[in-house]
Amino acid sequence: MTLYVNLAELLGARIEQGLYRPGDRLPSVRALSLEHGVSLSTVQQAYRLLEDNGLVAPRPKSGYFVPQHRTLPALPAIGRPAQRPVDISQWEHVVELVRSSPNKDVVQLGRGMPDVTGPTLKPLLRSLAQLSRRQDMPGLYYDTISGTPALREQVARLMLDSGCTLSANDLVITTGCHEALSASIRAVCEPGDIVAVDSPSFHGAMQTLKGLGMKAMEIPTDPLTGISLEALELALEQWPIKLIQVTPTCNNPLGYVMPEARKRALLNLAQRFDVAILEDDVYGDLAYTYPRPRTIKSFDDDGRVLLCSSFSKTLAPGLRIGWVAPGRYLERVLHMKYIGTGSTATQPQLAIADFIESGHYQPHLRRMRSQYQRSRDQMIDWVTRYFPAGTRVSRPQGSFLLWVELPEQFDTLKLNRVLLEQGVQIAMGSIFSASGKYRNCLRMNYAAVPTPVIEAAVRKVGENAIRLLAEEANAG
Amino acid sequence: MTLYVNLAELLGARIEQGLYRPGDRLPSVRALSLEHGVSLSTVQQAYRLLEDNGLVAPRPKSGYFVPQHRTLPALPAIGRPAQRPVDISQWEHVVELVRSSPNKDVVQLGRGMPDVTGPTLKPLLRSLAQLSRRQDMPGLYYDTISGTPALREQVARLMLDSGCTLSANDLVITTGCHEALSASIRAVCEPGDIVAVDSPSFHGAMQTLKGLGMKAMEIPTDPLTGISLEALELALEQWPIKLIQVTPTCNNPLGYVMPEARKRALLNLAQRFDVAILEDDVYGDLAYTYPRPRTIKSFDDDGRVLLCSSFSKTLAPGLRIGWVAPGRYLERVLHMKYIGTGSTATQPQLAIADFIESGHYQPHLRRMRSQYQRSRDQMIDWVTRYFPAGTRVSRPQGSFLLWVELPEQFDTLKLNRVLLEQGVQIAMGSIFSASGKYRNCLRMNYAAVPTPVIEAAVRKVGENAIRLLAEEANAG
Ligand SMILES: Cc1ncc(COP(=O)(O)O)c(C=O)c1O
Ligand SMILES: Cc1ncc(COP(=O)(O)O)c(C=O)c1O
Repeated sequence: MTLYVNLAELLGARIEQGLYRPGDRLPSVRALSLEHGVSLSTVQQAYRLLEDNGLVAPRPKSGYFVPQHRTLPALPAIGRPAQRPVDISQWEHVVELVRSSPNKDVVQLGRGMPDVTGPTLKPLLRSLAQLSRRQDMPGLYYDTISGTPALREQVARLMLDSGCTLSANDLVITTGCHEALSASIRAVCEPGDIVAVDSPSFHGAMQTLKGLGMKAMEIPTDPLTGISLEALELALEQWPIKLIQVTPTCNNPLGYVMPEARKRALLNLAQRFDVAILEDDVYGDLAYTYPRPRTIKSFDDDGRVLLCSSFSKTLAPGLRIGWVAPGRYLERVLHMKYIGTGSTATQPQLAIADFIESGHYQPHLRRMRSQYQRSRDQMIDWVTRYFPAGTRVSRPQGSFLLWVELPEQFDTLKLNRVLLEQGVQIAMGSIFSASGKYRNCLRMNYAAVPTPVIEAAVRKVGENAIRLLAEEANAG
Repeated sequence: MTLYVNLAELLGARIEQGLYRPGDRLPSVRALSLEHGVSLSTVQQAYRLLEDNGLVAPRPKSGYFVPQHRTLPALPAIGRPAQRPVDISQWEHVVELVRSSPNKDVVQLGRGMPDVTGPTLKPLLRSLAQLSRRQDMPGLYYDTISGTPALREQVARLMLDSGCTLSANDLVITTGCHEALSASIRAVCEPGDIVAVDSPSFHGAMQTLKGLGMKAMEIPTDPLTGISLEALELALEQWPIKLIQVTPTCNNPLGYVMPEARKRALLNLAQRFDVAILEDDVYGDLAYTYPRPRTIKSFDDDGRVLLCSSFSKTLAPGLRIGWVAPGRYLERVLHMKYIGTGSTATQPQLAIADFIESGHYQPHLRRMRSQYQRSRDQMIDWVTRYFPAGTRVSRPQGSFLLWVELPEQFDTLKLNRVLLEQGVQIAMGSIFSASGKYRNCLRMNYAAVPTPVIEAAVRKVGENAIRLLAEEANAG
């Protein structure tokens, strides 16, 4: 099943290495089929994957070409995280990041904040205001712990787009995706259990594992296709893993969309070893392709996938409204949600339900998706222009987060300190690893419409990195 | 230090037993001082405690009398919970209660819902609406994880009234008091640890202990003066207790305010055995006396008290805004709060900060306090009138919850089922015990201004109880 992925990786590597130059025509489908002894449709799938990732461009009737307009920087390397379950560290760096408040004097490239300033979000604010003026004040009452039925119905409807046929009763509304993750992990695991995670991985999910007393088994991850199934299989054979935690669609921080076939294969692995999957889909609706990619949950036929998500990235994080579709763990998750926070805030749930029901969600998504896609290209251009030679960059297929890999010896801890003094906030790579790897990496947010202020900030990041590298070289 | 409490209990018992009748003059302070060999001020303190609890009434220049206007039913008995740490049960009954949504066809006497319909809450709704109309939309952004500084400042200011001098930096804002409890317990305890709790105790706190894997050591509790310090001391000697969890001010479900001297003594015990105290003060601002009673936290000089509270009972629970003053556990609580939900919703925090800063909080409290006090008297009258002979009733000194104890053999499980069919919801006593005790008890909410509909509901509870008792007597 991973034939086409292997082929895509091979071709991708050739392009990255400069074997084919911008504008070059690539080998025909037929030629590659012969060369590699695979079917025509396998080659076509491989090309489609490369196309999704911006590495090749089709021209009608003439085949595939290396895109003209720009040379993309190389992709990040596949990580080599710890080969055994580890206790999670890095809280002291995470807390520095999440303690920061919105601040006009700092360009905040570090947090997972969407752009909330667009006009398509206005109806949500209107709903909120209207609810506050209603005589019966529904927002002031305790909600039922599984969440307002009106919202659960709308979420169930939205989830059809990712291939899930669920009903309102299959869902639990939570205080952001964060609580969905936390309640799900607690529903499945006991302290001391081992959880396999894609690496690099969202720092919040990792700190949640830490706080709940779990160990993380970090699995290497391909920057185009996601968690290595081969490495995962090996880990499942070697360790008593209880849960596989992944963000397969518009991954944070790498931005890839795991191909559908690999999603299915991941589910098969989980079934074979009888472990649960926690699928974090918080950026799933922000994939640049339409219709949006399917979730692993959509293939789940025995209730082992707990799908977690929220409106934090698609609408606004300050509302703190998320959900989980916990499959067979529904009752456990409900208990864990109850003990964490009781019920969820009522008013934002009602406002979001109204926003979706009135048809405002899809137009908003469409607008944000194309804004983010354009900002991505701009951000990659800036990094190409301002960052040290040899910098590698992810190719996000959705959302608004870019992963940047500096030369191996570089340490972003120092860079981060310097930048904070200069009014620029980034997210250091080390917090995306349980064990403090990825010290030479950083993550930047490109949600906002590009402005000279943002360009100047990105430029500062690059120039400081160049200076620090030079200083290091001199010292060394 | 408990001399005056002992004396008050003795006098209280004599009154309850009918030794003194309504209108009778009670022994003079001097006489009691001689009789019991205690100081005049000890007797005065005892009388003041009885007065706070509505058992005696002072008449200027003529001493203390048994109140004329009504005979209060007897107080609930002191519970005899398990004599060892237990695993917590009852989730199946709790979930039934907390799953219920607001429903116009059911008179909901079961939940801890305040009255949110009064005019003094309107400015809060206005603030919420205004925030939704602001151009810069502050409510949509991720807040810093410790909570909006503006709100933390206001909470620190309010806490002065309970004797605490804290700054904004000593506080963490949470998703309701529920998250404050959950983060605090996790900050102090490991799964398997033993937590001492006042019994009966808030079911949510107990389920949180359960969900986090703790064992509960239930300590007997006096319906006037709170957790038995003698029993607690014994338990501390016998078991490796990590945390003492109490609701000493306007206790849920018993409604007592633990006398200040006993609060100090509880802190001394905790210091002697070097354990932490989780003080749940969620109803503290709703005490009927002014100024409000001091918290245990206000005496804490080595940071071992984690004070948890929220605006759920004083303003509105649907907002889900609470806080914790975690003392020496601040960093741990912050981590646990982060892993539970990330940050707290931004907009309600800003609205509440504005409400308090604009001076609306105290007038609202004043109004609610006196409304609740009047409803309490009405509710006690109804129970006296409609419930079986021998029913015992708490004397809440604040908040809006009444604890009712039916004859010992009674089981509220059956009563609850019958009542739900008749559109009345109560809270069964068994959920207030870790081990399902208090089956013959129930809790009713008297927050709303009394109406014939509520009277009819209370009457239904009483009449069904009488019927079920008679049926049982016939069967037995
Ligand atoms: C992958 C991932 N999951 C979950 C979250 C948390 O989302 P929420 O803000 O809804 O709790 C984030 C936020 O950054 C994220 O990146
Ligand atoms: C004693 C006690 N603590 C905590 C809570 C939970 O409060 P919140 O709704 O703010 O989470 C309640 C609610 O009933 C309560 O009675």
